[in-house]
Amino acid sequence: MRFLPKLERKFRRWKKLKKPPLLRKLDTLFKSAHKGHRPEDSAKRVQKGNGKDVKNELSYKSREQFMYNGSFHEAVGSVLLTAQCFAMMPVRGVTAKHPSSLRFSWRYVRTCCCLLFMASMLINLSLTIYKVLHGSITFNSIRPLIFKSCIFLVCGKALSLARQWPELMMKWYQIEKDLPQYQTQFEKRRMAQTIRMVMLVGMMLSFAEHLLSIVSAINYAEFCSRTDDPIRNFFELTNDEIFYALNYSAPLALWGKLQNVYSTFIWNYMDILVMIVSIGLASKFRQLNDNLLRFKGLHMAAAYWSERRIQYRNICTLCSTMDDAISFITIISFSNNLYFICVQLLRSLNTMPSVAHTVYFYFSLFFLIGRTLAVSLYAASVHDESRRPLRYLRCVPKESWCPEAMRFAEEITSDMVALSGMKFFNLTRKLVLSVAGTIVTYELVLIQFHEDQDLWTCDQSTYS
Amino acid sequence: MRFLPKLERKFRRWKKLKKPPLLRKLDTLFKSAHKGHRPEDSAKRVQKGNGKDVKNELSYKSREQFMYNGSFHEAVGSVLLTAQCFAMMPVRGVTAKHPSSLRFSWRYVRTCCCLLFMASMLINLSLTIYKVLHGSITFNSIRPLIFKSCIFLVCGKALSLARQWPELMMKWYQIEKDLPQYQTQFEKRRMAQTIRMVMLVGMMLSFAEHLLSIVSAINYAEFCSRTDDPIRNFFELTNDEIFYALNYSAPLALWGKLQNVYSTFIWNYMDILVMIVSIGLASKFRQLNDNLLRFKGLHMAAAYWSERRIQYRNICTLCSTMDDAISFITIISFSNNLYFICVQLLRSLNTMPSVAHTVYFYFSLFFLIGRTLAVSLYAASVHDESRRPLRYLRCVPKESWCPEAMRFAEEITSDMVALSGMKFFNLTRKLVLSVAGTIVTYELVLIQFHEDQDLWTCDQSTYS
Amino acid sequence: MRFLPKLERKFRRWKKLKKPPLLRKLDTLFKSAHKGHRPEDSAKRVQKGNGKDVKNELSYKSREQFMYNGSFHEAVGSVLLTAQCFAMMPVRGVTAKHPSSLRFSWRYVRTCCCLLFMASMLINLSLTIYKVLHGSITFNSIRPLIFKSCIFLVCGKALSLARQWPELMMKWYQIEKDLPQYQTQFEKRRMAQTIRMVMLVGMMLSFAEHLLSIVSAINYAEFCSRTDDPIRNFFELTNDEIFYALNYSAPLALWGKLQNVYSTFIWNYMDILVMIVSIGLASKFRQLNDNLLRFKGLHMAAAYWSERRIQYRNICTLCSTMDDAISFITIISFSNNLYFICVQLLRSLNTMPSVAHTVYFYFSLFFLIGRTLAVSLYAASVHDESRRPLRYLRCVPKESWCPEAMRFAEEITSDMVALSGMKFFNLTRKLVLSVAGTIVTYELVLIQFHEDQDLWTCDQSTYS
Amino acid sequence: MRFLPKLERKFRRWKKLKKPPLLRKLDTLFKSAHKGHRPEDSAKRVQKGNGKDVKNELSYKSREQFMYNGSFHEAVGSVLLTAQCFAMMPVRGVTAKHPSSLRFSWRYVRTCCCLLFMASMLINLSLTIYKVLHGSITFNSIRPLIFKSCIFLVCGKALSLARQWPELMMKWYQIEKDLPQYQTQFEKRRMAQTIRMVMLVGMMLSFAEHLLSIVSAINYAEFCSRTDDPIRNFFELTNDEIFYALNYSAPLALWGKLQNVYSTFIWNYMDILVMIVSIGLASKFRQLNDNLLRFKGLHMAAAYWSERRIQYRNICTLCSTMDDAISFITIISFSNNLYFICVQLLRSLNTMPSVAHTVYFYFSLFFLIGRTLAVSLYAASVHDESRRPLRYLRCVPKESWCPEAMRFAEEITSDMVALSGMKFFNLTRKLVLSVAGTIVTYELVLIQFHEDQDLWTCDQSTYS
Repeated sequence: MRFLPKLERKFRRWKKLKKPPLLRKLDTLFKSAHKGHRPEDSAKRVQKGNGKDVKNELSYKSREQFMYNGSFHEAVGSVLLTAQCFAMMPVRGVTAKHPSSLRFSWRYVRTCCCLLFMASMLINLSLTIYKVLHGSITFNSIRPLIFKSCIFLVCGKALSLARQWPELMMKWYQIEKDLPQYQTQFEKRRMAQTIRMVMLVGMMLSFAEHLLSIVSAINYAEFCSRTDDPIRNFFELTNDEIFYALNYSAPLALWGKLQNVYSTFIWNYMDILVMIVSIGLASKFRQLNDNLLRFKGLHMAAAYWSERRIQYRNICTLCSTMDDAISFITIISFSNNLYFICVQLLRSLNTMPSVAHTVYFYFSLFFLIGRTLAVSLYAASVHDESRRPLRYLRCVPKESWCPEAMRFAEEITSDMVALSGMKFFNLTRKLVLSVAGTIVTYELVLIQFHEDQDLWTCDQSTYS
Repeated sequence: MRFLPKLERKFRRWKKLKKPPLLRKLDTLFKSAHKGHRPEDSAKRVQKGNGKDVKNELSYKSREQFMYNGSFHEAVGSVLLTAQCFAMMPVRGVTAKHPSSLRFSWRYVRTCCCLLFMASMLINLSLTIYKVLHGSITFNSIRPLIFKSCIFLVCGKALSLARQWPELMMKWYQIEKDLPQYQTQFEKRRMAQTIRMVMLVGMMLSFAEHLLSIVSAINYAEFCSRTDDPIRNFFELTNDEIFYALNYSAPLALWGKLQNVYSTFIWNYMDILVMIVSIGLASKFRQLNDNLLRFKGLHMAAAYWSERRIQYRNICTLCSTMDDAISFITIISFSNNLYFICVQLLRSLNTMPSVAHTVYFYFSLFFLIGRTLAVSLYAASVHDESRRPLRYLRCVPKESWCPEAMRFAEEITSDMVALSGMKFFNLTRKLVLSVAGTIVTYELVLIQFHEDQDLWTCDQSTYS
Repeated sequence: MRFLPKLERKFRRWKKLKKPPLLRKLDTLFKSAHKGHRPEDSAKRVQKGNGKDVKNELSYKSREQFMYNGSFHEAVGSVLLTAQCFAMMPVRGVTAKHPSSLRFSWRYVRTCCCLLFMASMLINLSLTIYKVLHGSITFNSIRPLIFKSCIFLVCGKALSLARQWPELMMKWYQIEKDLPQYQTQFEKRRMAQTIRMVMLVGMMLSFAEHLLSIVSAINYAEFCSRTDDPIRNFFELTNDEIFYALNYSAPLALWGKLQNVYSTFIWNYMDILVMIVSIGLASKFRQLNDNLLRFKGLHMAAAYWSERRIQYRNICTLCSTMDDAISFITIISFSNNLYFICVQLLRSLNTMPSVAHTVYFYFSLFFLIGRTLAVSLYAASVHDESRRPLRYLRCVPKESWCPEAMRFAEEITSDMVALSGMKFFNLTRKLVLSVAGTIVTYELVLIQFHEDQDLWTCDQSTYS
Repeated sequence: MRFLPKLERKFRRWKKLKKPPLLRKLDTLFKSAHKGHRPEDSAKRVQKGNGKDVKNELSYKSREQFMYNGSFHEAVGSVLLTAQCFAMMPVRGVTAKHPSSLRFSWRYVRTCCCLLFMASMLINLSLTIYKVLHGSITFNSIRPLIFKSCIFLVCGKALSLARQWPELMMKWYQIEKDLPQYQTQFEKRRMAQTIRMVMLVGMMLSFAEHLLSIVSAINYAEFCSRTDDPIRNFFELTNDEIFYALNYSAPLALWGKLQNVYSTFIWNYMDILVMIVSIGLASKFRQLNDNLLRFKGLHMAAAYWSERRIQYRNICTLCSTMDDAISFITIISFSNNLYFICVQLLRSLNTMPSVAHTVYFYFSLFFLIGRTLAVSLYAASVHDESRRPLRYLRCVPKESWCPEAMRFAEEITSDMVALSGMKFFNLTRKLVLSVAGTIVTYELVLIQFHEDQDLWTCDQSTYS
């Protein structure tokens, strides 16, 4: 039975139909309660464990290739792989078909790389602190400090997230399996496509911004040439926190540049991560909603509602688990963006010496605002989708209005399902407005202290 | 049967009574789900399509004349017609009795007019951007830019709204037909009268303001005469964005004036549109509420509550559909008004050189505040009316308290039925206070940067 | 039967007991729905109308003396009487035992007095506007204008309230009659005592403040004597808005003084009115709560909950009716207090020339803050009391948990019962904090514009 | 039976099992309603009262030693004892095993000590007022005044809390007894350990801060030596409010120092008290939640839910009782912390003359922020824990979904269970964000008025 997944599935379905609805629901509940301990799964693991039946396993996998399509694990595979190139999320098996292949160990090379990067980050951070403490501390001057602390914290959290990842993905897998089937191939691919699109656009814009920042820095370094070596000028400018404390040397410069590139990636990646998890959760709710839409207004049995309610509950639990896992990154991402928008808006009042600066500055500002808006809206979509079943429940005909449907409706009404910033705030559409209001208010107040500092004079670096 | 609508209606009613309540409710649900595909409607369309029975159709229409009174489509006819004179909402058949006559096509003359105006608007907007970017950018100086961008965006959105209009009106029609009958001719006419009154008052005040602006501009142009030609002076003043880039010529001046008149109309119309849709939705809820009031405290069958609940649900769906359709215009209207109130309040601190200016300025300011308040309150009335059935449900006697009544009450309690600004904020009475608070806060902060700029010196235009 | 109210009541109670609970509840509902048309009431009115049976009527009244004790009408009698001495609330029969004796007519002497005062107020207001417009307009200088406009508006609203008063009191009477009986004489008197205490304390503090203002003004007038006549100096100071436009004359000075005294009273009275209505409503809820407390945790029949629910509903309706009647006064009172606290806090930064000024100023400031707090807390108590039945419903034993109890609980949970400022904000305890926060924020911003204006120089009046 | 508590308990349990669930629930309800009048308790009291059976009582106690472990009374014993060393919470029997041993009397020595300290505090406060009024009043200079007023108010409130304490602890005892049994010894000890840990950490940090303040003051006194006596210099600096009015003398200096130490303790203790009560309440909810977790998703009888609901209700009532008792201290603690964070952040802009100052200042600032955050989060945990049963209720299988479970879920959904600041605000996690937002906003505004006052010049004391 284990070697014929297609047949097996059919058989399972037929079994489901044979069972009275009561038993069926109980089963589902039992399964969701004791997830990870189902005989098939454990059996599979045993197989893997003792290394037997490898061939069977493989043929099973090739059939799985299209069977388990549409899962979150599969959709984020490439995203995590990219992250691993930049020393984040060091978990093995991200491109495997099945989440049970995911492994985390402190002894993997990628984990070591990640730890190495964090150590290097820590040194860089110390140098930055050293430099900041030796200057005057203003709202603007602590920018590099905040930037680097955030990145260090996110790196640390991402590492701990990587440790949880195999378990989290198994949870997703269990819950996804119980959800109503996708109707079309298009629906199956939608989530993965959205996620890849977000990753791609985010990365490309980030890359474009980094290129512009290099162009602008070259421009600037030429203008304020301290030494005869243009390359040295460039690195002394972009890594001023290093060469404030240490003497210039090529390896240090390279290390600084690498650090810059990685930092920039991680700075973007923390927003992208929040977006991707949001897209995943929202799409699971949408999968449920699509099913509810199909049967909207029709006479459905109580068991139907009971089953949907349990599925809804499972996704809610998943949402809350994921929230616990990433809400630290969420709060860092939000406060970081809030701070940087305020600073950049303030700096927009400065005069810009060259066109390259202007282009870079405004591109950077709009990219920042756009990214913040995108994170907010994607994260809010989880909440929006979680409320939608209510629409379909409102259209249940009088005759089919059963206690289970009522309970379903009441649970949706009274529960707050949303990603949050460590429970201090929920990510809903209303948040966007209040964040915007906060930015405007702070800006109006901050603007009073602003004096055109001419940040482009040569004695002060402006590169984060 | 089709040719005797009165009899037909009686027959339909009698059929309804014969059916058990259960079937009746199901029917209603079925109808509302499959709206637009009822045999009668499609039959009617077939008749129209093949051009037969024109005489019958006409006599049918003359009877319809008083039959379909009280519909939203009929009430907004003249409002849309006015809008079409100003290149907005290019949809055909707005004055027809039945919404099925509504048509939108890209090839209609009015659509082309609309596109032509938008093109002309775009040119004007470019000229404005050109002028603004060549001066210093302050909170006050970007006023024309914001004004014109908003109008351009609203025009575009109105065009897309026009495309949806026939479908939206059919939805209204379907839902209105199922609502409890009006009791008196007065009730039937109330909505249409309110809408016409709002339109009339809005247009007249806007016209008065425009006249005052012309008087004030003439006054000003005379005082700061750049050339000997008073007409040229006037146009160079009121269309400074054009003549900043181009040389003066009479056709350009005329074009600028026309653009001004149209812009002013559209600037008012976006608020009026939100008000009118709000009035329509609120009056549909009121129609339901009037019926509930009549049977308040009496012993009603479960079927009564079931029917009302479905009708309520239909209006809610309509409300949400209309909100999706106009919420972009709503958010533009609100942010626009918020910005202009802040700017005008700031400008009120300036010294005014002449009585004409003072009168125009304060008339304009109070008109702006009044209009914003009117939009807010009319839009909030949708929410208020949607909550009112709760009052009547609270008075249901114990014996008649059935699951359907309970479900109705719970739905009203837990659902948020209101127009919104793209779901970022809901339009309720509480919003008015928070908007007022925001204006006061921003004003108190902005006031610090204010220096009496003497906007009435001759080197700077103050006409939007 | 009509001539033996005591017996009649007993009989009525006995009748109630005989009826099955279902019928009893229905009766109550019927009565509350058709209030004012009960046979006994109309019979009584007939008697009064045709002037017969006067002796019987009297003996009936003397017995009523202690029967109808505990009613709101009775409790506010003396408060309204005091108001009438100051040309407010011109309604006849406020001290009568029964609210049916209340009468309003435009031809009553007190109504004419009220209209006369309003005309005089209007003249004074015009003089004030005249003076304000001739000076520079600042946050501080428009104080007399705002003060007098508010008083004029409140006077007008109080007149319209007086017209509704007889009807409102009949509504109270009907609802009070159906409420659970008071257990002790102390409970019966509590509301009246609280109301009288509030009135007394409010009046006394207001009187003390007015005396202090006179002392301070005399002090000031002496210091800055413009003429040789100290009395003239005093009046020219305290009624500067009159003598700015007109020449000094004794009658005018007297008129101004009278106007001052009346204005001060009305300024306090609007807060007191809101407090008194709040106390009345809260005490009706408490009456219900006391009954629920007595039977807390016991096994009560469904009819008990049904009856309580209907009584609760009646008080809610009353609350909403009273809110509609006084919410304009509430919003005026709140915005007025908010403005004056801001202004006075700002003025507290000024240097005070004499001890008399200092004492008056701080007494006035703390009185203002205390009064605002008192209004807020008394008004919030209505909401607090309306939520309390929930506590007792939570303790209903499982066996007695019936649909009616559930419905009761749900209604309390989902309804917002509170006085409001024209529905823009609800008067709850949370409001106090947000008002305090608003004051602090505005104050911090306003403080920036403050320069010690030395308001006590002789060229500028500081008396409202 | 009374002498064999273990047996007795077994017997009671067996009795419980024998009773049908209905009766059982009723019993529980009856007990919780008439708490304090149970035969065993009253019997015990009688024994104590007439002084008989002392030996039995003792042996009973030694057995109780491990029986009543896990109670809140036991957990706070040492905390209250510490407080009593600093003249707070003068109640006898805090270390006794059973709360019935708690006694308060005005004639106890500790009560007199407390009153004596309050009198001494009052004198100190008067001296502070005297000094503050003789200087200029600014946001910063009123710091000692606010500090001492708060401490005086908290002392008074703590005295009144001590009077209620025996009764409050009996309430806790009654409710704790009915809660589900702890499963392990670890769970039993958890609450007490957390409380002791909080107390210890709080005290140690406070002690460290006080030491640093002494070091910093010695440093400062040396630098600005007014007299030749270094000890006199030190005391004149740290108790400037005393020696501003009075001449220096050693006893006065000692009194001042003692006052300082006590004030510092009480300033910390008010936060610790709120934390400890929060921990207690949250752990009671957790005790219930642990039980619900054990039976999560299983088929439980209606009686199970009914029992849990009543237990939940009891804890809610306890929560509300404790909130009434300590909410005055809560609001003082929050406003105090808010004010001091604002002041200290402002002062952080000043230049610091020595390393000792800098270390003390930043330690003090971070301790303050940390303490505020800890209070907020511990207090918020009560609300969080009170919502958690909902999670388990969502997983109740369809078959076990009974009216009692539904009622339980509805009550949790609709009730707001949280500690509050006199009901003006609820202590939830959202509050933390809004407090942080308020601090940032106020800070941004206050920063404008800040001029580097060089608080470390010798003419002005900076020690509270």
